[in-house]
Order: sequence, then C-alpha cells, then structure tokens
Amino acid sequence: RSSPSMEEMREQLRDYHDNDIAQSLKYLNRAERNLLYSALDAEWLAEIISYIDDPVEYVDEIGIDKLSAIINEMDADDAVDLWENIDESVKVKLRPMIDDQTKAAILLINSYDDDEVGSLITTNYICIHQSLTIRQAMHELVRQAGENDNIATIYVVDGRNRFCGAIDLKDLIVARENVPLDSLISYAYPYLLDHEKISDSIEKIKDYAEDSLPVLNRDKKIIGIITAQDVVEAVDDELGEDYAKLAGLSAEEDLNETIAESIKKRLPWLIILLFLGMGVSTVVGAFEGVVAVLPVVICFQSLILDMAGNVGTQSLAVTIRVLMDENLSAKDKLHLAAKEMKVGSCNGALLGVMALVFLGVYIVLFKGYSAANAFLISGCVGLSLLAAIVISSLVGTLVPMLFHKVKIDPAVASGPLITTINDLVAVVTYYGLAWVFLIDLFHLV
Amino acid sequence: RSSPSMEEMREQLRDYHDNDIAQSLKYLNRAERNLLYSALDAEWLAEIISYIDDPVEYVDEIGIDKLSAIINEMDADDAVDLWENIDESVKVKLRPMIDDQTKAAILLINSYDDDEVGSLITTNYICIHQSLTIRQAMHELVRQAGENDNIATIYVVDGRNRFCGAIDLKDLIVARENVPLDSLISYAYPYLLDHEKISDSIEKIKDYAEDSLPVLNRDKKIIGIITAQDVVEAVDDELGEDYAKLAGLSAEEDLNETIAESIKKRLPWLIILLFLGMGVSTVVGAFEGVVAVLPVVICFQSLILDMAGNVGTQSLAVTIRVLMDENLSAKDKLHLAAKEMKVGSCNGALLGVMALVFLGVYIVLFKGYSAANAFLISGCVGLSLLAAIVISSLVGTLVPMLFHKVKIDPAVASGPLITTINDLVAVVTYYGLAWVFLIDLFHLV
Repeated sequence: RSSPSMEEMREQLRDYHDNDIAQSLKYLNRAERNLLYSALDAEWLAEIISYIDDPVEYVDEIGIDKLSAIINEMDADDAVDLWENIDESVKVKLRPMIDDQTKAAILLINSYDDDEVGSLITTNYICIHQSLTIRQAMHELVRQAGENDNIATIYVVDGRNRFCGAIDLKDLIVARENVPLDSLISYAYPYLLDHEKISDSIEKIKDYAEDSLPVLNRDKKIIGIITAQDVVEAVDDELGEDYAKLAGLSAEEDLNETIAESIKKRLPWLIILLFLGMGVSTVVGAFEGVVAVLPVVICFQSLILDMAGNVGTQSLAVTIRVLMDENLSAKDKLHLAAKEMKVGSCNGALLGVMALVFLGVYIVLFKGYSAANAFLISGCVGLSLLAAIVISSLVGTLVPMLFHKVKIDPAVASGPLITTINDLVAVVTYYGLAWVFLIDLFHLV
Repeated sequence: RSSPSMEEMREQLRDYHDNDIAQSLKYLNRAERNLLYSALDAEWLAEIISYIDDPVEYVDEIGIDKLSAIINEMDADDAVDLWENIDESVKVKLRPMIDDQTKAAILLINSYDDDEVGSLITTNYICIHQSLTIRQAMHELVRQAGENDNIATIYVVDGRNRFCGAIDLKDLIVARENVPLDSLISYAYPYLLDHEKISDSIEKIKDYAEDSLPVLNRDKKIIGIITAQDVVEAVDDELGEDYAKLAGLSAEEDLNETIAESIKKRLPWLIILLFLGMGVSTVVGAFEGVVAVLPVVICFQSLILDMAGNVGTQSLAVTIRVLMDENLSAKDKLHLAAKEMKVGSCNGALLGVMALVFLGVYIVLFKGYSAANAFLISGCVGLSLLAAIVISSLVGTLVPMLFHKVKIDPAVASGPLITTINDLVAVVTYYGLAWVFLIDLFHLV
C-alpha cells in the first residue's frame, strides 16, 4: 500500500482505545497484522501489546528491529512480562539492542519475588523537584508527559533525590502562578516499600486505588509506582488465590499449566486429607458392632457427614471473608461465633425435622420397619444432623480464627482440619446415638 | 481555638492523603473530631467521608447545615451510600437543603438495580464540546477541574449532547495550540450502557481499568463515569460473590447481617443437599447386605467419599476460574477435561497405592484379619479411591461447563450436583467392588 493510505489507517486507528486494537489482532490474518506493525510506531505498538494477555505469537511476527524498539518504549512491568515469554534464541539477538534504561528497569523488577510489591511496579511516572516554581513544574510536566502516561499524580523528590511528597495534577492545573509549589505538595503522601508482601498490603493498595502509589526502597528513593491497573490485577490475583486455597489448591491454576504442575499444587492437601481420613476410619471402626447388628444405620452416614461438611464450609467461607476485610476486636469475633451457632441451630433444627419426617416415611415404606421403630431411627438421624450442624458451624468459625491468630493462612489450613473434626463429631454423634438410643434403650435388635 | 491555629491545622492536614485523615478519625475523641469538622470546608470533608466504610457515627456528630453542604459537594455515588445510612428523622430536615443537582444524581443512581452498571457511576467528570479549540478546551478543563476530580480522561459530546469520544488529558497537555481538537479525540472510545449487568461487563471493565469508562443511556447521553476505584470495588465484590457461591452461600455475607438474613442465604443449598443426600442414602441402602456380612468395609466409606468430594471441589474451582477468565473454544474445554482426567489419574493412583499399603497394615494390626485378606480389603479401598478420584475430576470439570453452556451460574449450581454424583459413584464403586471382589470372588465371608 502507498504511504497516504498508511496515514489514513493511523488516523482511523487513533479513534480506538488501544485495548480494542489489541483485542482485534486475533481477528486479522498474518498479512493484515504485518501491515499494522509497519503502519504504527514502536511507542503505539508498545501500548497495544501491553493489553494482550498472551503476546508471544504476535511477537514472533514482528521483526527484531521493531521488537527491540517496542521493548524500549514499553512500561517496565510490561517489558518484563514480554521478555519472559521470548525465545532464548531471539533474546540473544535482542539483548544488544535494548537500551540501558530498559535493561536496568527489567533487572530491577526481576530482582523482586513475585509476592513482593516491587514486582508490580511500573517506572512510567512523572517526577519533579521540590524546589521548582509552578511554571517550571508545569513545563516539566509537559516535557515528561511525552514519555510517561501516568500523569494524574506528580511525585516530588527533595535535594537528595528522596521521595518527599506528591501533587495532584488537578491542583497544579488550577493553581495560580504566584503560589509556591510547596503549598500544593502533600508531604505525608502514602507509599509502599519495595519488599513488602503484596498480600500484606493489598487492603492498603485497594483503599488508595483511585491514585497511583509510589514504591520506595530502603533509601526512600522512588523505584516506581503502582497504578490502578496494577491494583485491579493484584486484587484479582489475590482473591483468586484465596478462592483456590479454599478449594484445597495450594495456588491458583490456569489452563496452560503442565500436568506435573497441577499435581504438585493439588497433591499436598489430598495426602493430608488421606491420612486424616484414615484417622476417621479408625474411629468409625469402633462402631462396627453397631453396624453389624443394625445395618440400616449405615444408609444415613453419608447424609450426615455431607451436611456437616457443607455447613462447615459455609461458616468457613463467611469467617475467612470477615477476617480478610476487617480489623476485628475480640468482641466482634465472639459475636461472629455466637451468630454462627445461632444460624447453625436454626438450620440444624429445621433440617433435622425434615430428615425425621421424610426418612421415617422412607424407612417404613422401603425397609419394612414398623412405624415406631422407623421414626426412632429417623429421629436418631435428625438429632445427629442437628448436633453435627451446630458443631460444624462452630468449628468452621473457630478453626480459621485460631489459624489467623497464629498467623497461618486460614484459607489454606482450615479446610482439612475442619473436615476431619466435623467427620469425627458427626460419626461419633450418629453411631453413639444409634448405639445408646436404638440398641441399648429401645432394643431395636 | 483562634483562627490562626485553625489555619495551621489545615496547613498540616493538607500534607496527608484524604484516606489517611479518614482512617485517623476513629483515633480522635468527639471534641477533636468536632474541631476537625469546623476547621475543614464541606468539599474537603466530603472527600474524607467518601473514604470511610461506615460513616454513620460521624454523620450524627456533624451539624445539619454542614452535613447538607457536605452532601452537596460529594460525588453522587458516595452521596447515595451516605444517604442510605442516615436516619429518617435527619433526612426530613436535610431534604430541603440538598441542591437539585445532587438530588437528581441520587435519584438517577437509585433508579438502577444493584447489579446494573448504572448503580456504580459517579457524576464527577469533565465533559467538553466537540467544537472547541485546544485553547478553549484547556480553559474549560481548568474551570471544571475546580469541581471535578476525575480529570485524566476528558469526555466529548456532539452538538446534540450525545457522547462522541474522549481525550486523554496527557494529549491535551502536550498538544500545540494550532492543532484541531478533533485530532485528539478518540471517536471509538469504549463505553458501558447503564442497564448492563455488572457481572456481564466485569471483564471489560477490568481490561480498561487504567482509564475511567463513560456510562451511557439509551439516547447515547453520558449519565456518569466509572472510575478505577469503582472498578476495584466491583472486582472485589464480584469475586467475593463467586467465592461465597462456591461455598454454598447464595450471596456474600458480612458481620452485620441479621441471623434471619444469614439463614435465608444458606438454607436453600442445604435443603437441596438434604434431599440429594437422601437419594444417596437409598443407594447405600441397596448395599446393606454387604455391610451386614462384612462390617469392616464401612470404616472406609467416609474416607473414599471425602476424597472424591475434595478432588471434585478442586476440579470445580479450577474449571470455574478458567470459565470466568477466558473465551474458551470447544477444543480448550476438551483439553481441560482431558487434563483434569490425567491429573486425577496420577493423583488417584498415588493415593490409591498409599491407601493399599497403610490401610492393609492397619487392618492386619487392629482388625485381626490375615495379611492376605487385609490387603484384599485395602486393595479394594485403593482401587475404589482411584476410580472415585478419576470420575470426580471429570464430573467436577464437566458439570460446571454444562451449566455454563446453558447460562446457569456454575459456581452456584455445580456444588450440590457434583457432591451427589461423586457420592453415588464412590458408594457404588466401593460397595460394588467389595461385593464382587471380596464376597463373591474371594469369599472373605
């Protein structure tokens, strides 16, 4: 195509959000994409690529010269993501073409663990000196805005290049020229430290989501900022992790993981549960005698255990969310435990009565027991249901609180322990009641 | 206190982020807070209060005149939140003092359901006319910035006041004066519709998180915008809901809910499970004969059912996350199901062998069976574990996909069905194997 039509194409594309251009790439064929790569400059392509979740296939299509220019233009955090996915053979050719600033930024971000705040930063921000006038600051802003996108908050450093505050762009824009810059600076602006754990600071990051937050190193120098986009991703990841943990996965999984990785994430919990389950088995074994003489009772074991497990999971989910969101006093915790017990009692009583009625009818009709004996058995099931549900509610609340107290992640640790305690309680209650009530007291057999 | 010290106080507070001032309120006593209320103007207090999760107690402390001024200054969405928590007796006095613009905004936001995009909007944004010059646009920006905080993106309307595009503030700042404004406008800027469901558009909202998004009504008029802060809250809520659903709650709960509300959220799932569990009970009942002659088998029922349940939950969690995040092709789904089966087979084989060995030893030592018979029994448990785990993996993957296909929320619906199917499969496999293998084939009894 000729150059004027290239310009037309750029003109038209300028009307679209970069994310929309990014998402449309997959609907183009190779030739159309190549046209796009040559029509747009590296800076623009860098923006577009930063919106693509899995840019590897497109990267292979872009020539090495353009690719290096794109990486040099990219936000450092996006460059890191991209760099990780490039073939070593291509990296060898790319390395000499990456400029020192980008190299330094990639090295910096890679120097942090994935769970540290430093790994989230972008180095794309506006930074000015404390001693400037309003006019100079505005001039500096316009100069830096050409290269940096995150301009809503302007960071301020002192004579020794240490972070000392921030200016809201809005305040700078509406300020009159004769005001000292000093009066616009928030000197106690919030910040994060590079080695902080993301999970520890996620609440803080969320609270300030509307602004970007500076990330400082030990010497109070700004190493980068966290933007709203980073916050959304961090919140999403963090909650996804919690979600996964509650389901007994040691970390979140995705579609592209290998089978070995998946097994590694799931097996630990399963092995723990296998051994805890064996423990429960030995307890059930103690009641073999009951089952041998009154085999009908085993029909309802799975019902009681499942219900106890479900109630426990509900209490666990509520407790973990409450523990995550708020600074709880001891009184609040007591209040929550009391409430869970009450909810458990109401639900348990209702479900117990339903079990009594429906199972009683079932036993009369299909198991050939007399009505009196049938309702004795179903009453035993209903009573066990009530007891198991109340205790499960309490266990599902107290166990995560306990783990939270001793600084063990309750979402990971609570599941297996709660299942086991609930199984034990339910089994002992049910077979115990059956023994005392049905065999000893009413001599059903 | 005298006025100069008030000014000093303001001067010092200006150094802090409004969120920090908001969070510090609870550490002040009533008198100190009153001093603060009188020192700061309504606009500033409005900003501070918008950061407080539960502002009711402070609202009661603020005089009615100041309170009305604060509400008039607030972002509309924050005003709505606050208004909901004010006593009717106070509202009666407040109503005549609220200005028409704020009233209209509150009415507008309240006209949307909680799950509609319109309920998230703020009316605090910069909007200019398409026909302005760069200089006029800049002038308009400075004028509107005094009242509106969200200035990073400037929205553009046409001659009939319909949304037609957006300008990145950065582009406006660096633009030279002789360029036409037209060249800065993205005419195909993304937008949301007011009646869209939040859950349907959450992925879109997340993708554009760095920018605010305009929300339009049917006539293409801008009714408000969604900011990054709103996005974080929406993502947080949405994931919290999914989290709750996976645990069998019909909606997220918090500490302040009444017991009746909690019961209402939890009971539906429990009742469904009770009846499904009764179904499983009747199937177990069919195997009463096996248990009557070989009571030792009942020791391991809970082990097999628990393991199947856990594996099913793991697969469910992975599948739901995958379904939520990506536009999957049929091939991807097949790939996921195949992968889950492979992971299940590996985990199942390993856990089955562990059960065979450890339970065999246990049965010899504590149940008094001969080694041959003990390992026959534990082999039966191990084999059932393998079968139950493989099938649970598959069920935990296919059931949510099926629900997703027919547009039923898989996080809500999958749990009970998966539990039931897995229980049935595990029970039939285990007692079936025990029957055929231990009783019919090897005549253990």
